[in-house]
Amino acid sequence: MKWKTAISTHKNGELYIRGEALTKLIEKRSFAEAIFLVLKGTFPNKREKEMFDAILVAPIEHGVEAPSAFVARTVASVGNPMNVALAAGFLATGDWHGGAIEQAAKMFQSDKTPAEIVSGALAKKERVSGFGHKIYKEADPRAAAIFAKAKKLKFYGKYAGRAIAIQKELEKQSGKKLPLNIDAAIAAVISELGFDWRLGKAFFALGRLPGIIAHAHEEMVNEKPYRRFEEGDVEYVGKPI
Amino acid sequence: MKWKTAISTHKNGELYIRGEALTKLIEKRSFAEAIFLVLKGTFPNKREKEMFDAILVAPIEHGVEAPSAFVARTVASVGNPMNVALAAGFLATGDWHGGAIEQAAKMFQSDKTPAEIVSGALAKKERVSGFGHKIYKEADPRAAAIFAKAKKLKFYGKYAGRAIAIQKELEKQSGKKLPLNIDAAIAAVISELGFDWRLGKAFFALGRLPGIIAHAHEEMVNEKPYRRFEEGDVEYVGKPI
Amino acid sequence: MKWKTAISTHKNGELYIRGEALTKLIEKRSFAEAIFLVLKGTFPNKREKEMFDAILVAPIEHGVEAPSAFVARTVASVGNPMNVALAAGFLATGDWHGGAIEQAAKMFQSDKTPAEIVSGALAKKERVSGFGHKIYKEADPRAAAIFAKAKKLKFYGKYAGRAIAIQKELEKQSGKKLPLNIDAAIAAVISELGFDWRLGKAFFALGRLPGIIAHAHEEMVNEKPYRRFEEGDVEYVGKPI
Amino acid sequence: MKWKTAISTHKNGELYIRGEALTKLIEKRSFAEAIFLVLKGTFPNKREKEMFDAILVAPIEHGVEAPSAFVARTVASVGNPMNVALAAGFLATGDWHGGAIEQAAKMFQSDKTPAEIVSGALAKKERVSGFGHKIYKEADPRAAAIFAKAKKLKFYGKYAGRAIAIQKELEKQSGKKLPLNIDAAIAAVISELGFDWRLGKAFFALGRLPGIIAHAHEEMVNEKPYRRFEEGDVEYVGKPI
Repeated sequence: MKWKTAISTHKNGELYIRGEALTKLIEKRSFAEAIFLVLKGTFPNKREKEMFDAILVAPIEHGVEAPSAFVARTVASVGNPMNVALAAGFLATGDWHGGAIEQAAKMFQSDKTPAEIVSGALAKKERVSGFGHKIYKEADPRAAAIFAKAKKLKFYGKYAGRAIAIQKELEKQSGKKLPLNIDAAIAAVISELGFDWRLGKAFFALGRLPGIIAHAHEEMVNEKPYRRFEEGDVEYVGKPI
Repeated sequence: MKWKTAISTHKNGELYIRGEALTKLIEKRSFAEAIFLVLKGTFPNKREKEMFDAILVAPIEHGVEAPSAFVARTVASVGNPMNVALAAGFLATGDWHGGAIEQAAKMFQSDKTPAEIVSGALAKKERVSGFGHKIYKEADPRAAAIFAKAKKLKFYGKYAGRAIAIQKELEKQSGKKLPLNIDAAIAAVISELGFDWRLGKAFFALGRLPGIIAHAHEEMVNEKPYRRFEEGDVEYVGKPI
Repeated sequence: MKWKTAISTHKNGELYIRGEALTKLIEKRSFAEAIFLVLKGTFPNKREKEMFDAILVAPIEHGVEAPSAFVARTVASVGNPMNVALAAGFLATGDWHGGAIEQAAKMFQSDKTPAEIVSGALAKKERVSGFGHKIYKEADPRAAAIFAKAKKLKFYGKYAGRAIAIQKELEKQSGKKLPLNIDAAIAAVISELGFDWRLGKAFFALGRLPGIIAHAHEEMVNEKPYRRFEEGDVEYVGKPI
Repeated sequence: MKWKTAISTHKNGELYIRGEALTKLIEKRSFAEAIFLVLKGTFPNKREKEMFDAILVAPIEHGVEAPSAFVARTVASVGNPMNVALAAGFLATGDWHGGAIEQAAKMFQSDKTPAEIVSGALAKKERVSGFGHKIYKEADPRAAAIFAKAKKLKFYGKYAGRAIAIQKELEKQSGKKLPLNIDAAIAAVISELGFDWRLGKAFFALGRLPGIIAHAHEEMVNEKPYRRFEEGDVEYVGKPI
């Protein structure tokens, strides 16, 4: 099997990533700068770097209640190594948990108008990805913090505008208040920074991983094996015995 | 099922992580600082922050040849979402790929002397985790870059000393040159920074994730489905047909 | 969190699955019969049992060249437990490897005519799931074996008819010979047996698992750690160094 | 990368598994017989086949309370494909859930006496794998059903004897009643059938997979996305806010 890649290569006993020597990256660059380079092929300028840090920090942790946290803990609790617990945490993300960044970014990067997007979703009785939240009914404070930084750093442009326009259309067409959430805010910013929407789920994975690690580690250190539900948590609705 | 956690909680519609408001983290902190907080419970000082960035950058990518890269690409190529490709990349790490940080840190944080560690491993015909590398036979330039930064920032202390002492013992007892590699260097630094050895595999996962993302994305964007080996790559050694 | 299930429950210290005592299943039933019960809620009659065995046997193994085999081996080779290697094998299945059963069964269970199905796919330049195979260009012998048994046991009915009709339409509309493969044959039979198309990927997983186990075990017993590609397998197409 | 395998190969457009043509297996063999062939290299005789069916049926399902069931359901509930939900179910097995078969079979296949095994475990304050059960305190009815069949079919030999002897030693040395459970019974039977202990976790995976499938499918068909815990399930024990 043959592989073709533009990401990295070896030369004279040294690894070069997107054309940059890895040892120089270790010497001079922050983690966020190096991530930006790996994913985009160029270094961020100062404004891009600060903006990028903000969208990586925003999803960093959101409680043990989230599937990615309690699934990682459960997999650790039955006796698996750390790398496996983290993988399981990622499997417990998806279209309905962290996945909205991908769909929202795809939508923002498309040619459809906000009115078309909203009417299309309502006609199919689908949610509009990135709008509404189970916990934050009035406004998602994480989205507000991201957009505040985007305004300060001049990344509050075309895509943030589309996000706000969709929010208004949603309220107009559905009559319900479904404020834009962290996923829409991140989607708008990564679009503004020039990232492909297909990286959406990856940005969530990257940002949330530290929280998943903290949960798996807390489980390993503090808890006995092994997590299971009790019979009282279950309602049997099958054939009578 | 009940969960006990010291990592985060909600209060007045806002999430607090290790006691800090998430919106403030988004506003003021870099990704590396926020990771440090999530995993350790305190903010890093300036020296700790710079050191922490370096050990996160060091493993960020190491070629498509690594199992974590080509497995993630393969899983993407058969038609799975991004989060699944990344999870598969993590499953393709383990004791023999990225896993040595955990074992090396456990060893550095133990009470055993370098001589005991080496003679114990040689008696059981086991490798000493963190020493020797398939590609970097003379010296691992990533380890050198990490230790150069550790010296500059005054994190080249007890644990780096133990790493060097084990390297010398290994050469003395085995007669072979098995220089300390990136895993041993990271293990020494996280020990110096006060992290539990059980986070070893997590630090590799965290550092390498951007490279895995870049590979999965490159596969999705540039390649046709689906990766398989050809019959010429296989030698059949079973029952004659 | 509350769970509602019709699959199993405990009564008087004994587990009942779909209303049947597990100890009785152990005493009296074959594995294939018990699987049928768990997935469908009733025992198979004699004809159903023999047909069911055939579609479980058909995908049981197809060489180390398949992603589900070499990914499972790779994950074992870097030092992970057996359950993790098997999980990785499943992640390396998907729409393009074993996933066609799901799409073909959905198509067979839909209201569309074969002509509509084929013209729809050709218009979107999509493959028709379950037709054509990388290796078996003229005919897939596994599909032939399944359909021979279906004829003998009277399960060669409406759905097999739709499969054959689609094959003819495909040749007529595209001018190419794309014979129905194992996925289409299994999809037709599970439809005839009354299974929901959403079980399609599960039937592949179930049937292929023994092959994946054999590969992971062969790797653990016979091979040294750890699998990586060599630099000669890689073409670098990135920035010049 | 080169692969060496004794499991299967192609000849004249036909796949041969352990020397047998796959199309003949489809025509003539049950799923359990084909699994036996794939894993052991020979067909089972009539007694072996019936015994093998019993140990595959025994673990087939054990309630949504088990991590492998609720983790698979959770991963399906956040929007992942079936193969991913099943993989997650496998990640949620391990040393403490289904993993005891491996350790028990290793122990039965070792040279140690029952007295040495028990005293060794008690000295290290470790559980003896395969003895005791959270739910079945007096006796595990699944183990009894397996051993009843083993007696009938003459597979109740050396290894079952070792299992019983360890149970007696455990009661003698610890003063507690820790009856042998399903894992020990399966471990004894696979040892008697000549299978390597390193297949232990694989036998659990194989047997339990139908139950995991049923749960993931029930979730997909009957439930809305997505599963999370409520704040009432969590106790915060971190820094005061």
